Amino acid sequence: MKKIKVGIVGGSGYTGIELLRLLTQHPSAEIVTITSRGEAGTRVEDMYPSLRGRVDLVFQDPKEAPLKECDVVFFATPHGVAMSMAEELTQNGVKVIDLAADFRLKDTEEFKKWYKMEHTCPDILKKAVYGQPETMRDKMKDAMVLGMAGCYPTSIQLGLLPLLELHKKVGNIVDIKQTIIADSKSGISGAGRKAAVNLLCAEATDNFKAYGVGGHRHSPEIVQQLSEFAGEKVSLTFIPHLLPTIRGIFSTIYVQLTEKGMEQDFQKLYEQRYANEPFVDVMSKGALPETRMVRGSNYVRIALYRKEPNLLVILVVEDNLVKGSSGQAVQAMNILFGLPETTGLEQIALAP
Amino acid sequence: MKKIKVGIVGGSGYTGIELLRLLTQHPSAEIVTITSRGEAGTRVEDMYPSLRGRVDLVFQDPKEAPLKECDVVFFATPHGVAMSMAEELTQNGVKVIDLAADFRLKDTEEFKKWYKMEHTCPDILKKAVYGQPETMRDKMKDAMVLGMAGCYPTSIQLGLLPLLELHKKVGNIVDIKQTIIADSKSGISGAGRKAAVNLLCAEATDNFKAYGVGGHRHSPEIVQQLSEFAGEKVSLTFIPHLLPTIRGIFSTIYVQLTEKGMEQDFQKLYEQRYANEPFVDVMSKGALPETRMVRGSNYVRIALYRKEPNLLVILVVEDNLVKGSSGQAVQAMNILFGLPETTGLEQIALAP
Amino acid sequence: MKKIKVGIVGGSGYTGIELLRLLTQHPSAEIVTITSRGEAGTRVEDMYPSLRGRVDLVFQDPKEAPLKECDVVFFATPHGVAMSMAEELTQNGVKVIDLAADFRLKDTEEFKKWYKMEHTCPDILKKAVYGQPETMRDKMKDAMVLGMAGCYPTSIQLGLLPLLELHKKVGNIVDIKQTIIADSKSGISGAGRKAAVNLLCAEATDNFKAYGVGGHRHSPEIVQQLSEFAGEKVSLTFIPHLLPTIRGIFSTIYVQLTEKGMEQDFQKLYEQRYANEPFVDVMSKGALPETRMVRGSNYVRIALYRKEPNLLVILVVEDNLVKGSSGQAVQAMNILFGLPETTGLEQIALAP
Amino acid sequence: MKKIKVGIVGGSGYTGIELLRLLTQHPSAEIVTITSRGEAGTRVEDMYPSLRGRVDLVFQDPKEAPLKECDVVFFATPHGVAMSMAEELTQNGVKVIDLAADFRLKDTEEFKKWYKMEHTCPDILKKAVYGQPETMRDKMKDAMVLGMAGCYPTSIQLGLLPLLELHKKVGNIVDIKQTIIADSKSGISGAGRKAAVNLLCAEATDNFKAYGVGGHRHSPEIVQQLSEFAGEKVSLTFIPHLLPTIRGIFSTIYVQLTEKGMEQDFQKLYEQRYANEPFVDVMSKGALPETRMVRGSNYVRIALYRKEPNLLVILVVEDNLVKGSSGQAVQAMNILFGLPETTGLEQIALAP
Repeated sequence: MKKIKVGIVGGSGYTGIELLRLLTQHPSAEIVTITSRGEAGTRVEDMYPSLRGRVDLVFQDPKEAPLKECDVVFFATPHGVAMSMAEELTQNGVKVIDLAADFRLKDTEEFKKWYKMEHTCPDILKKAVYGQPETMRDKMKDAMVLGMAGCYPTSIQLGLLPLLELHKKVGNIVDIKQTIIADSKSGISGAGRKAAVNLLCAEATDNFKAYGVGGHRHSPEIVQQLSEFAGEKVSLTFIPHLLPTIRGIFSTIYVQLTEKGMEQDFQKLYEQRYANEPFVDVMSKGALPETRMVRGSNYVRIALYRKEPNLLVILVVEDNLVKGSSGQAVQAMNILFGLPETTGLEQIALAP
Repeated sequence: MKKIKVGIVGGSGYTGIELLRLLTQHPSAEIVTITSRGEAGTRVEDMYPSLRGRVDLVFQDPKEAPLKECDVVFFATPHGVAMSMAEELTQNGVKVIDLAADFRLKDTEEFKKWYKMEHTCPDILKKAVYGQPETMRDKMKDAMVLGMAGCYPTSIQLGLLPLLELHKKVGNIVDIKQTIIADSKSGISGAGRKAAVNLLCAEATDNFKAYGVGGHRHSPEIVQQLSEFAGEKVSLTFIPHLLPTIRGIFSTIYVQLTEKGMEQDFQKLYEQRYANEPFVDVMSKGALPETRMVRGSNYVRIALYRKEPNLLVILVVEDNLVKGSSGQAVQAMNILFGLPETTGLEQIALAP
Repeated sequence: MKKIKVGIVGGSGYTGIELLRLLTQHPSAEIVTITSRGEAGTRVEDMYPSLRGRVDLVFQDPKEAPLKECDVVFFATPHGVAMSMAEELTQNGVKVIDLAADFRLKDTEEFKKWYKMEHTCPDILKKAVYGQPETMRDKMKDAMVLGMAGCYPTSIQLGLLPLLELHKKVGNIVDIKQTIIADSKSGISGAGRKAAVNLLCAEATDNFKAYGVGGHRHSPEIVQQLSEFAGEKVSLTFIPHLLPTIRGIFSTIYVQLTEKGMEQDFQKLYEQRYANEPFVDVMSKGALPETRMVRGSNYVRIALYRKEPNLLVILVVEDNLVKGSSGQAVQAMNILFGLPETTGLEQIALAP
Repeated sequence: MKKIKVGIVGGSGYTGIELLRLLTQHPSAEIVTITSRGEAGTRVEDMYPSLRGRVDLVFQDPKEAPLKECDVVFFATPHGVAMSMAEELTQNGVKVIDLAADFRLKDTEEFKKWYKMEHTCPDILKKAVYGQPETMRDKMKDAMVLGMAGCYPTSIQLGLLPLLELHKKVGNIVDIKQTIIADSKSGISGAGRKAAVNLLCAEATDNFKAYGVGGHRHSPEIVQQLSEFAGEKVSLTFIPHLLPTIRGIFSTIYVQLTEKGMEQDFQKLYEQRYANEPFVDVMSKGALPETRMVRGSNYVRIALYRKEPNLLVILVVEDNLVKGSSGQAVQAMNILFGLPETTGLEQIALAP
């Protein structure tokens, strides 16, 4: 079988190395080029010795990298890079999978507000598809550009999807006048591989804190998607916290139900909705997820609990670098190229 | 000045060693005896080498320890021990400070339900005072028995106190028909020093999980106290989580406000309410607490944030072994014996 | 291709779950049965939710498990179990791979001294082969019983192998009158999944200590193997320490060289010796290993450094649960059944 | 009693905040000024909320700070700063305590080699005293400038002091032809509060590595001091490693003994040598130190173990920010001003 020729732009961050880890083990992918402005000329395995003996690549300057010869290019870059290159690539028949935010928000004004830059290719944005297999699989198949779901959004959206779909379908399940609360906690790799005092080990380990309380960039994305699921505008209160772990997102979601909502069997609803999803695991009634249950794997695990009759508590875990980012991007590549979605993604979580 | 003669029952757990750390540095206390059934005969500093050179004590069997000669006895024991000894001690004029739950819940049926044992001294319970200086200072002064506030309850109650007091005073501030949500996270020392697989380093570090979702023993205590503050029955959804840190509790509290509530200046309210509290710090507007800001100290730090106009988010940190337990107990001792409350409790948090 | 029928005895510890993780992803192995006295009847995925959806097995009582129908049985048990079952299994043509110490030490008196039990099958011990592919590959191929190398021993022996082989071959390289020093550090999973206060998260995290200074069970094994490599009795000072990490062993080895030894190019020697070893990586000159470079993978990475002309410092990392235990055992299975050694063991280290 | 007027130059790093923590609790010291070029104008408690309510200071620009009005100025700065200001301060009668390396090495060529800068005040250096109370107490009393011992050096020097003093006194105890090996491990705060990718939480936690293997700046300092103790040139192999903890140094020291050395009772020797040292604890025979036994305290704890008859293993723990730096500096201040050495330094280690 001919392998998919893959390019990675921005390979020196955490989503970049995670793409390397996953794609190196992918039976149908071949990494043709990986770029890094700052590390051009450095052997990948010198920078990431965990890949010694497994990757025979040198970081290339993005200008010199043969990206146009690829079948697909992943952008593991800061916001703004993918949109500067998407047009040229797609015109050359190269598919684009952006792990950053350039193609997530449909509203360019919202994009500008949160990312402090103009959107430079609104036409491509219109055709771009939001990259979340569980909800967009069919549309993703034929897309040229995918704007992959963010890490927090993936956990919160998959946690709420069956509930809000039901709300849309039968109406009046969630008390839509009340805000949905997502109290999320993320391991520190979510903040990226950047030298910053607040991310130092001596600052962040043996510690726990909230951040971005005043407004986090992932909020508009989540609201956009939840509202899409629900068929009406949803209010969300999203409070992110920083865990002293490397990987893992844990979202504790609180939803107020209507009287009609209180009568539903959500355990059954979720199990049915996700029965055929290879990477979404609805845990048994009474079981509780832990971040280590997905460490290094592409799974999301979800548990449901009813406190007070009208309050549904939804607990979701994912590995922010896998299902929350690079793993989901590889899953998207599998969809783009007609492969089984689990190809190259069958790593089992590392436990203990 | 004559020193307070102190006894500690159950000195081999984490609240026990924390009492030792604090009382050893207390200028007006003298530890007369410390008991441990399992460790009787062991030198304290052999078991806890962090105390080498500072404590010249041997664990005694509780039956042989001169507890009745003490001025005050701390119970750093499992639930049920303090109530079995409180009568004899108080009859001998010895004050009792229980760090466990024997004297927290006023309703003995509730106690039985959550702690799976009969309350054996309801008469003493009636006279016992709930140990939380910020709300019970005056009553605590003359008490013979104090049932100290629990670790989670301290963080949640102090986080809600000014708000609920206002609600009681002027009415209709909090939307009392909605449940208050306390999404709490605790370091692992809160689970105590007991050999259990789920508390192993290889199980609990680099991990994050919820637990006790179905109902935690601290719930009835918190509801009892919040309802007292509010002047009416309060509904609470309390979801505890386990942090991969040794110490620290972080409670993120979500409260839905009425229209009248939305008009209040909570920052000012909290600052005023706690202006004279030596250990409660209302952080500046926009600042956010972190658990390391109280590591090893008796402070609680609180920040307030208004999301959606009708949703107040309250963020609270404490060290579960200090303000959440042994430190607050020493503060209570200071109250009982007429000392300044900060005596022996001026340790500054260890940072980094 | 017909799959290898595998049994696992003692599946509820860390080496057991790690075997499950690896064998589940192994293309030529089929787990037929897994036993656990304490967990008989429990679904494996209920105990280890990281395996949900990937393992459809129930723990069986060892007495009822169809071990004799297997092609190979792994013992992930405490010391003493494998030797009680090895005879019956091998007589039925079932190969035995013991991850514990029953078949490591050739001297039954040494075994008795360190493990406080008689060796019950010295005849089988005589025919058993020490399980370390890099040194015993050829003998392992035809063995019925393998006593797999321990975790610390693997790191120290692979760190010293080329040097001591040279010493044996040309003589007088290492100053054999001086003790070799192995200052080793292990993540806490090396202590196993047992409820013990000293292994608690609140005790072992944010801490570092030495242990077993007076003598560790791995010493006689290491001395046995090093002496075999060197062709003469070697003296070893082995000081194990406990790291506040879950996985990973780091051995810093200090060897005093003779004048003849000082003239050698050890970097070249090691690179040549391990050139064809799929899992031993001699790092580039000047590079230094870190435990995260092998986290979750079967690699050993080695760096050499010459301090003082006559002192060779050898730095070795491995994942104690993979190359130090279950991974090496799967590698051994591959050898026993004529498969490429890397089959099912190509996981790349999880970084970050 | 009149308080000592204290200035701190370079207050925004970890040794700076640790000085703040300790001096704020010191009964005889008053912090008059604290400087930080980068943070001038910032309230100290805004930068370090752990000090909220306890420190009423604003970082000042070093040029505007009233340093000359102080009795003593601590330099918690990068190397090179103290020597640029020492002359002016001492001429004004202000004592200088440098926590960096400007006044540690007596040989200015060595200083230049390791710190890549010329020494600018060799005359002051000649009169400066090395700041290690256990060996230099008498000389420190009258010094105007103290070059405080480094963090690693403190642990290694105190670990070897009694042994080398005996060697000097009676001769031929240590096999001086062999190198002494110090395998040291440090928590990450030792690397300082600087934004660097290799110090990120996602890089350094759940990891262990060696570094500076080719030569660490602390080597010449340690060799200088050990040679002074021994009365002859000592050879040292020092391999530092990075622990995934915030605080704590653990040095495992290996010394080869002569036949005469083998006859000594080192346990007794150490106990006697340190009997009157308030901060050096020789642990009981058989006991082993752990870094948490000194977390946040000014103690050093030492254990001795004899492996092979001729190999002495010495295990030493300290908190790198307290006894390894700021605590020892406060101890030095106490000596300079005739106070009991333990003043303000009686914090007990935080355990758990």
